[in-house]
Amino acid sequence: MKQSLIPQRSHVTKEPIPVIVYGLGAIGIGAVKLALQKSYIKIVGAVDVDPSKQGKDLGDVIGGDRLGVTVQPNIQAALAVAPAKVVLHTTTSFMELVEPQLVELINAGLHVVSSTEELSYPHLQSPAIAERLDRLAIDKGVSVLGIGVNPGFLMDLLPLTLTGVCQSVESVEVVRVVDTAKRRVQLQKKTGANLSEAEFRGLMDTGRMGHIGLVESVALIADGLGWPLERIDDEVEPVLAKELTTSEFFQVEAGRVVGLNQVATGWSNGKPRIVLRLHMSLRAENPCDRIRIEGTPPIYLEQPDGVAGDHATVAILINSVHRIVEAKNGLLSPHDLPIPVCRS
Amino acid sequence: MKQSLIPQRSHVTKEPIPVIVYGLGAIGIGAVKLALQKSYIKIVGAVDVDPSKQGKDLGDVIGGDRLGVTVQPNIQAALAVAPAKVVLHTTTSFMELVEPQLVELINAGLHVVSSTEELSYPHLQSPAIAERLDRLAIDKGVSVLGIGVNPGFLMDLLPLTLTGVCQSVESVEVVRVVDTAKRRVQLQKKTGANLSEAEFRGLMDTGRMGHIGLVESVALIADGLGWPLERIDDEVEPVLAKELTTSEFFQVEAGRVVGLNQVATGWSNGKPRIVLRLHMSLRAENPCDRIRIEGTPPIYLEQPDGVAGDHATVAILINSVHRIVEAKNGLLSPHDLPIPVCRS
Repeated sequence: MKQSLIPQRSHVTKEPIPVIVYGLGAIGIGAVKLALQKSYIKIVGAVDVDPSKQGKDLGDVIGGDRLGVTVQPNIQAALAVAPAKVVLHTTTSFMELVEPQLVELINAGLHVVSSTEELSYPHLQSPAIAERLDRLAIDKGVSVLGIGVNPGFLMDLLPLTLTGVCQSVESVEVVRVVDTAKRRVQLQKKTGANLSEAEFRGLMDTGRMGHIGLVESVALIADGLGWPLERIDDEVEPVLAKELTTSEFFQVEAGRVVGLNQVATGWSNGKPRIVLRLHMSLRAENPCDRIRIEGTPPIYLEQPDGVAGDHATVAILINSVHRIVEAKNGLLSPHDLPIPVCRS
Repeated sequence: MKQSLIPQRSHVTKEPIPVIVYGLGAIGIGAVKLALQKSYIKIVGAVDVDPSKQGKDLGDVIGGDRLGVTVQPNIQAALAVAPAKVVLHTTTSFMELVEPQLVELINAGLHVVSSTEELSYPHLQSPAIAERLDRLAIDKGVSVLGIGVNPGFLMDLLPLTLTGVCQSVESVEVVRVVDTAKRRVQLQKKTGANLSEAEFRGLMDTGRMGHIGLVESVALIADGLGWPLERIDDEVEPVLAKELTTSEFFQVEAGRVVGLNQVATGWSNGKPRIVLRLHMSLRAENPCDRIRIEGTPPIYLEQPDGVAGDHATVAILINSVHRIVEAKNGLLSPHDLPIPVCRS
């Protein structure tokens, strides 16, 4: 069969969606650059707390051509220049710090797509904040979403998607192995590169070591499947260099830390039914993503090289913009919306 | 971290959704059996055109315990016994044949989840019917969805989902290899088992050989990505036995047909940007599903044993029930709704 005219639905937004970028760190800058390539998005404003960025043209801040958008100190100043519909929010990982920012954005009548890791499933660690934000968002007629590649996709939304073809699910296991030497220096630092084992364990005890969002991924999967969990365990162990291990930024002697192993386990009916294993270290062997679902039918899937994180997080934030404007109101999780497909 | 109380959202439907099953072939019977295991679904009615099934208890028809639901000859008779919210529609593959059935269901104010292959993207081959159904569904305040494992998931919705983490997509290629000897006799027949090559090509010329839905999968991916296509090619070739090849149902001599190779290609900007390759034959080697997305970042994923089709189609139909009742109205495609996760 050949068809020379392909009928297609005309559902793609015709007027570009006006967007403000809130937070101009690495992810925010990446989001601006990608948004400029998307015909359905128009960046109309930018906000950052850093006085050295305020008052500058956004193009200068991202290292590109002038954009005619001045970086403002707060959302009111940005909205005074141009109205917007959606905010791309990329500031910090934690609910307590972002709550006042989100309240301000919701009160301004803006939909929010955020990279805040804990916001991917805030009902777990901050149920009171989550309830307040949900009520406020419904009241103001807007939608708020936390999403990223991890949490938000690889270890939660993707396995949940695969259960769509299962009659029943007994357990979900996801393994992600990341070679941090191929990633940004920030991730190498966050995973403990070149610390001594004692230093690593000291930081662990203060809760400052480990991937943020792994327990949220467990809770998000349980929520999607409708499984009440009795308990979530979250265990982090250092990975020590067996020999001199180097990256562009570090030279780690044998015995010192090159990264971490983290396992989050969700218990249901006395069984470990959701197990998420994350290994991130310098020169980790065989980087990959693997998903195993025990059920009817069973599902096993692997991405032999794994999915690169930084490009992917920026992508899924941008790809969520056309979904959030059509979503129901309230505080949403990634599985509450249609999938954030990549549109041109 | 250990948490002994896991806060969870209470979004799971509390009252079971009343469902009528329309069509009691293999898929319809499978859907009834699975629905009986789901706490959020209540089967309140059943309809079949076969007089030998009408008037019987549904439990007798599916070979189980009495269910207290009598199989009716039409939807009005079923609704006269019990009101319903959703119809699981499993009759035939083609839009022209299902249009009058769907019109009747929509007019009765029922949401429809259907296994009709062409309904996964009816805008391609039946744009006029699709437009009529879309308008009627919006007018009546209901949602209509065509979905299955293929078309509807493995070769379209799943690759589209993966583009969610892509900044840009150049091309999408999906390969699915199915060993039909492990599947139902119907699939072995449909793929030409034990035909001569001439018989196969004769049936091909009348359009009666090949997988239904592969071009719909191409169009669905293009629609999701917002790519206008110039052309879709669809090529089917017989696969001939190299030696005596047997299944539970067939003994095929060397030189006769054991299955088929089908390739559907979507052309955009003069390039073959969506290529779907489906190989289905008796004793096919290395059954698998593979997805390759060229883009930023590139994605490569494989399911080494492939996903078994029959269980999976029944599953995704049932798993769509809790989504359709919350979806927007109209004629929907699988990527218009949140993912149909497996709920208990």
